[in-house]
Amino acid sequence: MFRLLAPCRSALAARARRPAAPRCSSGHAARPGGRLLVGAAALAGATLAAGLLVGVGRRRARMMASKSPSGREQRALEELRRKCGRFMSDPVTDLDRLVESRGDVKTEMELLLMQVQADVCRALAAVDGGQAFVVDRWQREEGGGGISCVLQDGKVFEKAGVNVSVVFGNLSEEAVKQMRSRGKALKPKDGKLPFCAMGVSSVIHPKNPHIPTIHFNYRYFEIEEDGQKVWWFGGGTDLTPTYLNKDDAVHFHQTLKEACDKHDQSYYPAFKKWCDNYFVINHRGERRGVGGIFFDDLDSPSAEELFKFVRSCAQAVIPCYIPIVKKHLHDSFTPEEKAWQQLRRGRYVEFNLIYDRGTKFGLATPGSRIESILMSLPLTARWEYMHNPAKGTKEAEILEVLKHPKDWAS
Amino acid sequence: MFRLLAPCRSALAARARRPAAPRCSSGHAARPGGRLLVGAAALAGATLAAGLLVGVGRRRARMMASKSPSGREQRALEELRRKCGRFMSDPVTDLDRLVESRGDVKTEMELLLMQVQADVCRALAAVDGGQAFVVDRWQREEGGGGISCVLQDGKVFEKAGVNVSVVFGNLSEEAVKQMRSRGKALKPKDGKLPFCAMGVSSVIHPKNPHIPTIHFNYRYFEIEEDGQKVWWFGGGTDLTPTYLNKDDAVHFHQTLKEACDKHDQSYYPAFKKWCDNYFVINHRGERRGVGGIFFDDLDSPSAEELFKFVRSCAQAVIPCYIPIVKKHLHDSFTPEEKAWQQLRRGRYVEFNLIYDRGTKFGLATPGSRIESILMSLPLTARWEYMHNPAKGTKEAEILEVLKHPKDWAS
Repeated sequence: MFRLLAPCRSALAARARRPAAPRCSSGHAARPGGRLLVGAAALAGATLAAGLLVGVGRRRARMMASKSPSGREQRALEELRRKCGRFMSDPVTDLDRLVESRGDVKTEMELLLMQVQADVCRALAAVDGGQAFVVDRWQREEGGGGISCVLQDGKVFEKAGVNVSVVFGNLSEEAVKQMRSRGKALKPKDGKLPFCAMGVSSVIHPKNPHIPTIHFNYRYFEIEEDGQKVWWFGGGTDLTPTYLNKDDAVHFHQTLKEACDKHDQSYYPAFKKWCDNYFVINHRGERRGVGGIFFDDLDSPSAEELFKFVRSCAQAVIPCYIPIVKKHLHDSFTPEEKAWQQLRRGRYVEFNLIYDRGTKFGLATPGSRIESILMSLPLTARWEYMHNPAKGTKEAEILEVLKHPKDWAS
Repeated sequence: MFRLLAPCRSALAARARRPAAPRCSSGHAARPGGRLLVGAAALAGATLAAGLLVGVGRRRARMMASKSPSGREQRALEELRRKCGRFMSDPVTDLDRLVESRGDVKTEMELLLMQVQADVCRALAAVDGGQAFVVDRWQREEGGGGISCVLQDGKVFEKAGVNVSVVFGNLSEEAVKQMRSRGKALKPKDGKLPFCAMGVSSVIHPKNPHIPTIHFNYRYFEIEEDGQKVWWFGGGTDLTPTYLNKDDAVHFHQTLKEACDKHDQSYYPAFKKWCDNYFVINHRGERRGVGGIFFDDLDSPSAEELFKFVRSCAQAVIPCYIPIVKKHLHDSFTPEEKAWQQLRRGRYVEFNLIYDRGTKFGLATPGSRIESILMSLPLTARWEYMHNPAKGTKEAEILEVLKHPKDWAS
């Protein structure tokens, strides 16, 4: 079982006392707020198994008892350092803090987020073959920070962003409101509500209108109410094609279903439906895309089980998406198809700025890094007054699916 | 003094009993939901004085007493019909209803809105000299309707929309919330809150980055609470340049100040400040543009005085903007300047979708015409990750003004 470090505040206070500092001895030089360029070549070929540290927790007692760690402990530490060296940057939390708290859900989650970021960036950079990922490491004055990786105006991708953030502090009144609108009845104490939120969030907008946009986000949240910890997992992966390709939709959903089914057969149908109901551009009466999975506020059966489920989902991103990208890499397209993509990009902007809770929460959290939150927006978008595709066109076909979601996985 | 038809509900109910019907015998054929093309040529040369009907109200009693109107009444009716014939379309309210209720603030306001729409469209079409305005007349199932005029992809204008709407019915819960956030403590009765809202709203996005974007909106609102009518005026005109041109900013603000000063010397400084505080892209720490005037919830000294003030402001739109357009019509520009314009367009989208109360209210009002609300969005926009202009550039110069608003009128 995971250890849930309680109360939350003490863990946060421990972090707050110690400013975030460089900690990985190998790999990228640690530069808080700095910028690195990590291209396809530098990343090619390396794959890492996530969750390397799960189960290491039981070694903690022995380690704490001895000031000079055994050879075995030393090897575990070295392994962690090597692992970190292959991330896009050092994790947000100091290495020594991570070592101290290994086995804790927050530690395992942060390492998973870093791993997913590295794996996805590597896979995308390899497909793009052109532009490098810009890696921005940033700190949040109020607590925590993040690592934003962005590939912009590449050969294949118009804009690809993969962002990890690990933030903590006190929720703002506006952010509490965002929580409340989700049905959480939170009770701030003296107007304060300590929280810790971490997640990986990504939106990939390709240039070719025959390659769909993908979004995924996996996150863990802790709030402290009257000294009691409240925690939950959330996340999802969804696809937004410019034109409908049924085979792509089936492949995408089937891959997600398999990732879910390993944990609970009821997950995929429930979270597919949740996704269809969440990514709705209400004022247009349209879904944003062909869906996928979406879930929030998950807190049972246990943090450990849910962590494993979230890990499976996050690890399904590459197999559910990259084959679709490769398949359409050399599809030709007309200026009209590109223009339709631009209009759909406009709809994407509408959803993200008007409805997306993550964006709203981010913009309402003091000290948020705006560039990382809004990196989900496409490089270019278009709005035409009264654009209505004629019946029987490919544009009308996708609109029909956006208005009436279908089942894609059996 | 204006007559304020009370209670509001009875006026609305009277309208609701009678479906909106064609009413102008001259001019455009009345086609609810139809579309007309009105080009520069068709509109050239005709200018109309707004507020033609103010003061006609006192003739009402005589007219009501006689079923066959006198020659003088007949002439007044004919004059109204001629006036309507020069609008972009028939007003939303039936002509016979307007005649019955002339002298009422809602009637005068609706005619003013139609007049302003026609004047501005005429002036813009004359400058553009290319594209025609598409005129869409639409009805709202829940009550009322509007006339949207859009010029898209013209010679000078990328997208120019001038929208009139006159809507009534019951406020949705979400719309009541929008009102509440403005400090209005509204009390729905049996969950219902009858309202009537009318306004002209316009955003003009030119192609040339040296011609600024303008927005204006003038509106009148009535709500019925426990049989009591609550009413107010709101509005404003503001300028969003891609690059700073001090002379343009001075001309713009000076023209608005003169329009305000005719009514109350305290208006311009108060409403200039209100504008600077309203058009704020909070998460960027920037204003949307160089401001102008903005006011809301005005209900004193009287409806008649405020109507005259709003009329002066609305009539100042052409003299404050068209000279700036003409001045920069042939300015050359680089691809870099165009790209900067596109990034600023992205910011415009951010403000409108995240903060603008009018947009939020529109999207939250059941049966709203989405295309008319979102015609404020530019044809094209761009988001680049971490775009930061270098010090000393023209791009940094405008950003500085957006972060620290200046006084432009003396």
